[in-house]
Amino acid sequence: MIDSISPLDGPAMEAARSLHARLTKPAGSLGALEELSIRLAGLAGQCPPPIPEPAAVAVFAGDHGVHAQGVTPWPQEVTGQMVANFLAGGAVVNAFARQVGASVTVVDVGVLEDLGEGPGLVAAKVRAGTRDMTAEPALTRDEVSAALEAGARVAFTLVDEGARALVTGDMGIANTTPAAALIAAFTGADAAAVTGRGTGIDDDRYARKVAVVRAALEAHAPDPADPVGVLAAVGGLEHAAIAGFILGGASRRVPVILDGVIAVSAALAAAALARDAVGAMVAGHRSAEPGATVALAHLGLEPLIDLGLRLGEGTGAVLAVPIVAGSVRVLHEVATFDSAGVSEK
Amino acid sequence: MIDSISPLDGPAMEAARSLHARLTKPAGSLGALEELSIRLAGLAGQCPPPIPEPAAVAVFAGDHGVHAQGVTPWPQEVTGQMVANFLAGGAVVNAFARQVGASVTVVDVGVLEDLGEGPGLVAAKVRAGTRDMTAEPALTRDEVSAALEAGARVAFTLVDEGARALVTGDMGIANTTPAAALIAAFTGADAAAVTGRGTGIDDDRYARKVAVVRAALEAHAPDPADPVGVLAAVGGLEHAAIAGFILGGASRRVPVILDGVIAVSAALAAAALARDAVGAMVAGHRSAEPGATVALAHLGLEPLIDLGLRLGEGTGAVLAVPIVAGSVRVLHEVATFDSAGVSEK
Repeated sequence: MIDSISPLDGPAMEAARSLHARLTKPAGSLGALEELSIRLAGLAGQCPPPIPEPAAVAVFAGDHGVHAQGVTPWPQEVTGQMVANFLAGGAVVNAFARQVGASVTVVDVGVLEDLGEGPGLVAAKVRAGTRDMTAEPALTRDEVSAALEAGARVAFTLVDEGARALVTGDMGIANTTPAAALIAAFTGADAAAVTGRGTGIDDDRYARKVAVVRAALEAHAPDPADPVGVLAAVGGLEHAAIAGFILGGASRRVPVILDGVIAVSAALAAAALARDAVGAMVAGHRSAEPGATVALAHLGLEPLIDLGLRLGEGTGAVLAVPIVAGSVRVLHEVATFDSAGVSEK
Repeated sequence: MIDSISPLDGPAMEAARSLHARLTKPAGSLGALEELSIRLAGLAGQCPPPIPEPAAVAVFAGDHGVHAQGVTPWPQEVTGQMVANFLAGGAVVNAFARQVGASVTVVDVGVLEDLGEGPGLVAAKVRAGTRDMTAEPALTRDEVSAALEAGARVAFTLVDEGARALVTGDMGIANTTPAAALIAAFTGADAAAVTGRGTGIDDDRYARKVAVVRAALEAHAPDPADPVGVLAAVGGLEHAAIAGFILGGASRRVPVILDGVIAVSAALAAAALARDAVGAMVAGHRSAEPGATVALAHLGLEPLIDLGLRLGEGTGAVLAVPIVAGSVRVLHEVATFDSAGVSEK
């Protein structure tokens, strides 16, 4: 799969750039949306590229051994309870997905609790939660591989079922802690620069969280050139699965809209596994978590929405779906100066 | 109408704030969207407020006597040609409106050319273009009143037809020049700080544009306490009509999503006529024009989207429709901790 991920198609991008210059609008007046649509032409290898709809959100859920270190005031059982909430359609990501016409699929890659199977739930548990990364590696390399494969399989299934945009989502109490550690490991940034307050923790707990991230990095000294090793040392099952989901989308040349800090930490792993996968990534929004900004800068991605969201679940990314689709729709539907009989300057 | 515009309803806002605290998400995790939905509850006077859909875009079109001063390289005939493009569904605002399920109504308040009537076109021409504001006032006070009323009538009609969000749009070759003059007049900012490159003009033409804005302000010394006088001296017919459209929406307590620099210059006039109208305003996006940022700061509004757009037509605002609707949908559809059986921290 990784070998099938190739660079953006230059001629398709050139065709999109040239088409933009003939459409009835001043050159460059759609700002970042012009560049986005040109990149999506390069991803599809055609101009115009397909309108990236319908969109499918996959919410990958997992638990975390590092929860034992007191990095969050939320009880671990909330991960499983929120999975039930997603399946009942009662979470924010469900409301936003209905708003934009996207589907929501929930994937259990590592929830502690036994969730069984059910409509809308993909049972792909690799392990009931990770190990505590301050005491030992969070995962084995085999577990990371299994989670990567689970994520890629979900991407393939959703694309086979008709999705033309994939949206990353996550649920996992304590999962901003491994996200911070992953971002530090892949970018070289200091633990304090990439660790945020997650759901909104106080100063004492924040200091503990930074110390936990720093201790895990010092214990394992993960090598960014070995992304599977990094995910095993300080990652999470949903982080690994999202990395696989991104790679799956990229290999099918379908855009993957990234949500917040969990998604972008996983995107760093995906990019380390296949640099050209970055071409399929669209940064849906900028999370309020500081690590998200560090990771986006490392990936060279500018987010579409920046509203101080820090909820996860895919909420920021799914709100970006109409913007992404709109950018491509312009290439399909807007008249040229010639066809509309509009004078040029 | 202006007398009917009243402050946001405090108890409805308090009810929305309290509901947010019970929904299954960490407190504050939806960032600016929580504040937005709380404000819309205050506007509607109920919690939850109605979901602001369907949305209706009104594109107000007019021409400008100041075009004679060489402030833009585009020929004036493009205003009428683009009206035809809107009516044929071929402009970017049409593509974006289809993306988000919004309607587009075009209103001729001041196009030079005789456009007649037709499906989707509201004939409300006050005058065939403004006068050159560097030589004389652009409009009479009566013409400003007629344009304000035309805009308000469009708002009333769209709301009567079922719109639950109004979106401002504009078309008028040279119309960023009066917008800059309006923003300078209402905020006290210098001409150079509020004048931008519009469709993308070169340095020489930009210097001329700044000089034109400065000359018009010096010639008329408009008094910001007399908003009709300001609009008459240095405004445009679409600017005045959009101000009326905003006031019409505010009086019906329907949110008005503001587009770029034309819209926010008109919003300053609307706010000067009825300060409480600001409660109905939602800043759809931040235009790349510097005057837009000056006006938004003066109004105390933070934009939802910031992607370097500088096209006008309503394009930035209409892309914000799903974000605005999504913020309210949360109050309708998201489960509470109690109802979903999710533990709290």
